[in-house]
Amino acid sequence: MRDVEIVGVGMTRFGKQEDRSLESLGRAAVVDALNDGGVTSNSIQAAFVANVLGGGQVGQRVLFRAGIESIPVLTIDVACASGSAALHEGFEAVASGRHDIVLVLGVEKMSGLFKGGINLQREDRESRLGLTMPGIYAMVARRHMFDFGTTPAQLAAVSVKNRRHGLANPRAMFAQEVSVEQVLESPAIADPLTMLQCCPNADGAAAVVLTAGDHGRAGRPRVRVLASHLVSGTSLRRQVEIDRGDISRRAAAGAYEQAGVGPADVDVAEVHDPFTIGEVVSTEALGFCDAGDGGDFAASGASSLDGSLPVNPSGGLMSKGHPVAATGVAQIAELTWQLRGEAEGRQVPEARVAVAHTVGGGVAELDGVASVVSILAAA
Amino acid sequence: MRDVEIVGVGMTRFGKQEDRSLESLGRAAVVDALNDGGVTSNSIQAAFVANVLGGGQVGQRVLFRAGIESIPVLTIDVACASGSAALHEGFEAVASGRHDIVLVLGVEKMSGLFKGGINLQREDRESRLGLTMPGIYAMVARRHMFDFGTTPAQLAAVSVKNRRHGLANPRAMFAQEVSVEQVLESPAIADPLTMLQCCPNADGAAAVVLTAGDHGRAGRPRVRVLASHLVSGTSLRRQVEIDRGDISRRAAAGAYEQAGVGPADVDVAEVHDPFTIGEVVSTEALGFCDAGDGGDFAASGASSLDGSLPVNPSGGLMSKGHPVAATGVAQIAELTWQLRGEAEGRQVPEARVAVAHTVGGGVAELDGVASVVSILAAA
Repeated sequence: MRDVEIVGVGMTRFGKQEDRSLESLGRAAVVDALNDGGVTSNSIQAAFVANVLGGGQVGQRVLFRAGIESIPVLTIDVACASGSAALHEGFEAVASGRHDIVLVLGVEKMSGLFKGGINLQREDRESRLGLTMPGIYAMVARRHMFDFGTTPAQLAAVSVKNRRHGLANPRAMFAQEVSVEQVLESPAIADPLTMLQCCPNADGAAAVVLTAGDHGRAGRPRVRVLASHLVSGTSLRRQVEIDRGDISRRAAAGAYEQAGVGPADVDVAEVHDPFTIGEVVSTEALGFCDAGDGGDFAASGASSLDGSLPVNPSGGLMSKGHPVAATGVAQIAELTWQLRGEAEGRQVPEARVAVAHTVGGGVAELDGVASVVSILAAA
Repeated sequence: MRDVEIVGVGMTRFGKQEDRSLESLGRAAVVDALNDGGVTSNSIQAAFVANVLGGGQVGQRVLFRAGIESIPVLTIDVACASGSAALHEGFEAVASGRHDIVLVLGVEKMSGLFKGGINLQREDRESRLGLTMPGIYAMVARRHMFDFGTTPAQLAAVSVKNRRHGLANPRAMFAQEVSVEQVLESPAIADPLTMLQCCPNADGAAAVVLTAGDHGRAGRPRVRVLASHLVSGTSLRRQVEIDRGDISRRAAAGAYEQAGVGPADVDVAEVHDPFTIGEVVSTEALGFCDAGDGGDFAASGASSLDGSLPVNPSGGLMSKGHPVAATGVAQIAELTWQLRGEAEGRQVPEARVAVAHTVGGGVAELDGVASVVSILAAA
């Protein structure tokens, strides 16, 4: 396996952008990443494009507009883990020697998409009965409260922290500080989860250029991908203990082994936080704290920007919004900026090792979930 | 690069199967392929799943029901080339040493899908103006007739041949012989293409197990994948000469080079025939005949089962129907049966080298197309 480096990253603003097409968003992120890396469009040998809701051949549609054609282009869907899965495929393609320089793109246009309802192929009985994504995460939260005594205020602390972090991210959807009281008093979505504990849908794109060894701009800090581990599994509703983040735990174990590092080595992490309880469970699964301690981990300030292990310095999905397939690639962009020391206003001092984590799926009747954990390091 | 072998294949019947779910179709093909190969579900290390219209995380949804979970599962969309692209990814994963045994699945449920119209994310102006898929292929046919003197009867010969071949395929949607006159007198869809020159939508699935070297059942003929080449490009409507199959030509050139064989070595081929003109242009692009001679190649009988280079012994999309993402994998299943000598009633005698070809995309406003050419051989 060859060393893989990140030489260019790009990301659009996330948020409601009704006037911009999917192609326009994707193109902007690709052009940014190429320019950031000093890479010309004709040097890209293959592209791995994450998209869930775009309606077909999104990769080709976007890349053509960025001056890229004739190469292998795959569009990949693994729900909320799509962007991370595309990164995983790109990493494997370069590490294995299949390609020397590849592009990874995540892009999603969600504005207006659900106005007429989702045209799912089959009836989704369980969603109609209330077992929607917020409903599932609410069940996880209730179970976590029962098993470990996690409090609503601890859950709210995740939202408070991530929204505070997001203030310094010019690409985030929201730039608004909130208090624990405001979070808890916002309208209930699926008890105990309130509105300010749920991430918003968004439009956006992020892109990354991966190379074998150093092809980056001279003199710039180098960033290596030490590991990217993808696993699949069954949905939450089929698990007995739904609050343990089993699938994330497996992905993390594989990634740590591949990278030769452990949780204690991690300086900064981007962790999947579609709902506050998501970050709580996932920080436990990633080994940042003990099982059951995820609520306290956030509420204590340990995962704040000035804490011992800052989590979601970008503001997370909670601040940035969640353009499904773009999310995992945006995490990689943020961590690259962190490892280069370029995360202005939200820089984690002396960040050397970074972890990105997503988990996708779990909606009722979608029996599969996937999780990807990737580990980056300053080279 | 390691040798890659096909040790198991499975395929459902193609056709309207309104009573079967996407999951049921996919599961059946997977179970067939595992059993055919003598491979247990827990030995599969990764799965590459092609699906276009299934609504998210199709890979995990299907594989869970076939006893496969915890492994990396990717769902891939490259329009009509999706199944071939999944095969390509599986081939690369095994050839590069990333995995020793992988599953490739293509599955599509189309029945009932277009009753309420397709919920495309954006308005498709050109389709509304008539530049649908039949419209585009009709333009290609008109241009081919103008450039090369191809006749309607030559186009019809493709349909006559493939529907005759399909009579011997128990998994094909149609089992009905048609004459040139019947083809030409069937209702016009997009002039000069008549109804019997267009493939039908269908439901179905096909699966393939790929391994590094020989893991197949003892004593059975072995089948190797010599090459799988994937290229992308711009849509037909952006090309000056729309009747030359440029993208297929590029995919074929790459595959022949990788395999170390040429068109003259090919004994049997499965070629993308969504419309009669598609097979005409693609047989030229694959080098089976000279540019412009594709019409005569079919009408002369050269590509019939008893001709010099049988094309679409399975009956092609024209007979089998076209469950979009299943199509490319079904081609591989058919060619595996051919190379093993198991294609009862439609066996090409002494078939040693086989070519599979698809091309996807090209619909108005979908600026990208992709083509995959794979080459198999009796080992």
